[in-house]
Amino acid sequence: MSSGLNMSRRIRRSPFTSKVEQHGVRGFSVVNHMLLPKAFKRSVEEDYWHLREHVQIWDVATQRQVEIKGPDAAKLVQWMTPRDLTRTQIGQCLYVPLVDGQGGMINDPVLLKLAEDHFWFSIADSDVLLWATGLAEGKGFNVDICEPDVAPLAIQGPKAEDLLANLFGDDIRAIGFFKFAWVDFAGTQQLIARSGYSRQGGFEIYLRGGSATGLADQLWDAVWAAGQAFNIAPGCPNLIERIEGGLLSYGNEFTLADNPLECGLADYCHLDGDFEFIGKQALLNVRQNGIRRDMRGVLYGTEPLPTVTIPLPVMAGKQKVGQITSGIWSPRLNRNVGLSMIERDHWASGTKVSVGLQTGHKVPGEISLLPFS
Amino acid sequence: MSSGLNMSRRIRRSPFTSKVEQHGVRGFSVVNHMLLPKAFKRSVEEDYWHLREHVQIWDVATQRQVEIKGPDAAKLVQWMTPRDLTRTQIGQCLYVPLVDGQGGMINDPVLLKLAEDHFWFSIADSDVLLWATGLAEGKGFNVDICEPDVAPLAIQGPKAEDLLANLFGDDIRAIGFFKFAWVDFAGTQQLIARSGYSRQGGFEIYLRGGSATGLADQLWDAVWAAGQAFNIAPGCPNLIERIEGGLLSYGNEFTLADNPLECGLADYCHLDGDFEFIGKQALLNVRQNGIRRDMRGVLYGTEPLPTVTIPLPVMAGKQKVGQITSGIWSPRLNRNVGLSMIERDHWASGTKVSVGLQTGHKVPGEISLLPFS
Repeated sequence: MSSGLNMSRRIRRSPFTSKVEQHGVRGFSVVNHMLLPKAFKRSVEEDYWHLREHVQIWDVATQRQVEIKGPDAAKLVQWMTPRDLTRTQIGQCLYVPLVDGQGGMINDPVLLKLAEDHFWFSIADSDVLLWATGLAEGKGFNVDICEPDVAPLAIQGPKAEDLLANLFGDDIRAIGFFKFAWVDFAGTQQLIARSGYSRQGGFEIYLRGGSATGLADQLWDAVWAAGQAFNIAPGCPNLIERIEGGLLSYGNEFTLADNPLECGLADYCHLDGDFEFIGKQALLNVRQNGIRRDMRGVLYGTEPLPTVTIPLPVMAGKQKVGQITSGIWSPRLNRNVGLSMIERDHWASGTKVSVGLQTGHKVPGEISLLPFS
Repeated sequence: MSSGLNMSRRIRRSPFTSKVEQHGVRGFSVVNHMLLPKAFKRSVEEDYWHLREHVQIWDVATQRQVEIKGPDAAKLVQWMTPRDLTRTQIGQCLYVPLVDGQGGMINDPVLLKLAEDHFWFSIADSDVLLWATGLAEGKGFNVDICEPDVAPLAIQGPKAEDLLANLFGDDIRAIGFFKFAWVDFAGTQQLIARSGYSRQGGFEIYLRGGSATGLADQLWDAVWAAGQAFNIAPGCPNLIERIEGGLLSYGNEFTLADNPLECGLADYCHLDGDFEFIGKQALLNVRQNGIRRDMRGVLYGTEPLPTVTIPLPVMAGKQKVGQITSGIWSPRLNRNVGLSMIERDHWASGTKVSVGLQTGHKVPGEISLLPFS
């Protein structure tokens, strides 16, 4: 299902929007008040196969950076997440749940540690800038918080490393998973991380200074030119690949109403660590009372069903035990694949369920661990 | 300019979305992670004339409510805005700028005072929920903050009062401008305010409990049925009418980078009041250093130009003195009308300027006070 999107200054263009328009972008979503390309000329399925085999260039500038800098920066950042940051190194990226005082999910950004007193949160769709600024204002922390002029560009797919080694030199091959380094580009220093919103490998270049100069066009063109030898295509986070890979989306799979222990993020919560964070008592209570649900995959139907835009109930008999919040046909598994938080008594892999469709019909399904194999 | 909008759970449907779909909505914007209808079958111009003469029903559920309740609620709310709230009465609506510690605009909501310890911010497009919660968490305020299940429905136009008097009784005629009262609907108590995002008069019904029950459909149908005698039409905030009326839009006319003294909101800032608020020192500094710009209208071109989606520079000779952030052809004034912050030396009504178009051409224009007459 798609509809027209009315444009205005409030729905911000990214430094790469002109480039994706030149490539014939057909549809957008809006994330962090900014355009996220969601469809090009080819189908999601064609893009899926291409992403698994070749390399794609994605405008993911909607992953806005919230910069926290200053004497109290490390203290504030640790206070914002249940993940233990005490041993985090400069040059590391960490996936961190952010929770409020009730343990509800505020966001699930990637944290980049640039210096002992300098961090970026690379955020999903909520105003972490306001959350962090409010906390600092209330506590009187000595920090500077802003959204800097940084626009991530993702190069994803198995050929990404070869492409970027051609462009920036072989040193980038040494960058570990969820680590970052700096490269020279057009007289500027730019951050490059081995990360991205796919399971096919790749990098993200966090372009600084791209909004006012021609630097964004230059970077896009340079990647595009180097990519010709690797069958590069314009793309975007691919819904089939994302769901198969078990990559969650804030606002889709979970919201402020959910806590990280029950939405698949328990591994990133260190409740017994010797550090304070917002929502600690709430999460301790959740753990003590017992986890009632967890994130799972659902395989359902044997024919292609419409892509999920409104959650579909997951039923065990007449009992609702979950809801598929993202779901699409997988041409590789020949099943529809969905993501759902599932009640404890039904979350075992292989449990039989049914899925209620928009039409009112039901189709049989079964629970799967994530990622889908 | 419009493009496809890809739907997902993250882009929330409102309790009225099904109804606007039945009415043939053609385009949306996204505000507060929720769908805002932006176009129906008729043109913006046809809707404009209709709005000035008859009555329209608008799904403005994207005006999410941020509820602040509890012993410290009044203290927190006053701390969040430079507007003096010391004499605010229960039953009053107030337009309030919210600013950060640097005096930057966080949002420009309407504040509703429901009780001495109970407030709603009816917000524009930013996560005030996170801002308020962060402040309260940092300060240790004793408040409960949430986004309640409240979905505003606007009834706008000169016939709105007669329509709603037919539906709810003549008592609603006594509701003053920016005041609210309570009406019975289908066994529930609902808040109705004389307010709305147009200059044509009208009301907003803040429907409680509409997300899970059939209440939203019932309310829409009741208004629609009562509206048949008044030539009711489905609509949405009308860009021509909004710009002519000088109604500003957060994210369009101003952002976090702007302060309220320079973006037309000085009347809502009481810097000399005997109360504390975030950003007070910053705004005092702005005032002391002198206001450099203010919000103005720009009349430009004598032929219809494309609706502004990317800001257009306002030039005095070769000097940029502003940018039109919202602009459209006015069929009533036979000029294009735009909104722009304008530098002090050029903000006098009647000042001649030129406006740079996307094509590279320039057209002559002149500064106007707001609202356009």
